[in-house]
Amino acid sequence: MLKGEKTRQRIIAKAAPLFNRKGFESCSMQAISAATGLEKGSLYSHFETKEELAVAAFDYAWSASCSARTGNLEEAANSVDKLKLHIDKCVSLPPFAGGCPMLNTAIDTDDGNVVLRRRAQNALHGWVSFLTQIIEEGKSKGEIRASVDAEALSTLIISLIEGAFMTSKLQKSKQPMLIAQQHLNAHLESQVRCNENQVRA
Amino acid sequence: MLKGEKTRQRIIAKAAPLFNRKGFESCSMQAISAATGLEKGSLYSHFETKEELAVAAFDYAWSASCSARTGNLEEAANSVDKLKLHIDKCVSLPPFAGGCPMLNTAIDTDDGNVVLRRRAQNALHGWVSFLTQIIEEGKSKGEIRASVDAEALSTLIISLIEGAFMTSKLQKSKQPMLIAQQHLNAHLESQVRCNENQVRA
Repeated sequence: MLKGEKTRQRIIAKAAPLFNRKGFESCSMQAISAATGLEKGSLYSHFETKEELAVAAFDYAWSASCSARTGNLEEAANSVDKLKLHIDKCVSLPPFAGGCPMLNTAIDTDDGNVVLRRRAQNALHGWVSFLTQIIEEGKSKGEIRASVDAEALSTLIISLIEGAFMTSKLQKSKQPMLIAQQHLNAHLESQVRCNENQVRA
Repeated sequence: MLKGEKTRQRIIAKAAPLFNRKGFESCSMQAISAATGLEKGSLYSHFETKEELAVAAFDYAWSASCSARTGNLEEAANSVDKLKLHIDKCVSLPPFAGGCPMLNTAIDTDDGNVVLRRRAQNALHGWVSFLTQIIEEGKSKGEIRASVDAEALSTLIISLIEGAFMTSKLQKSKQPMLIAQQHLNAHLESQVRCNENQVRA
């Protein structure tokens, strides 16, 4: 990696938790300068605007969050178990510093930066697509009931995880996340897993 | 109402949507001055600090949100139907300008103002208590199954509503809220409503 690219990556890695914690408006280039030990002029030689850096920082934070939560799901052979493993990772793994980047950016930008908002929208779209694909595969393999609306189930899982993440953090308790997990697991077993398949097995 | 108190209330009503939209750090006293047509000095004669005004603004916004969503639930005679009516109000009623004040303040203050954060924590606590009371009453009347964990069900409902509120707003679609409502209603009918009671009825 060229030195310039290495510096750029180091700036992004330092800026990501700061933007994620404070939001776009409240996170100053001054703070990023302090965190990186680089002059503001040097930051601007790598990123034309604060927005460009914030977007790169969001991509970095979201990518780190996703790879930990969507990776290695093939450990679970069945589609329903893949969903349960993904939910377990969402509940168990420590969040990116400052909390879920999508949730933070969604709230931070709902009357704010439109470029970052588009990023958060794409993140949600990508997450829905990821889960929808697992569910559709499960339906085609007979592991998930044909009547299940894949996109609706994906949206339900994401909404509950994100909401429970917020209530957990606010209550300073793991309990809301565990309640969400228990509820989703029970729903997946009773309403989503293909019973015919279980009978056949 | 004395003139001073009337002005104070007018400032709070104008400041509440601004704080709710932009967050504590990003909302300037300058913006509130512009919205109210009052000089900054005049604002500070009513509120010693920006924090004091932000707290009053949160209380105003949260109170407005709650009274619309928790009022008139006695229209529904049965406890389960009260929960369903409350969920319907959460899904159907237009949110306070800028979105749910608790969600916004929870995310805005998770690495920020501690006094406002405590306010959001109390709001969540109050909401959980409100639903828990309905559920406990339902249990004592035989309308809700004795096995239901009232606090866990309250937390589940709130987490899903808040999460769906975020995904709905991000997707610019009512769909995630409707999915959440349909799911909660089905859960309340199949896992919460007391069947023995239905049989007896």
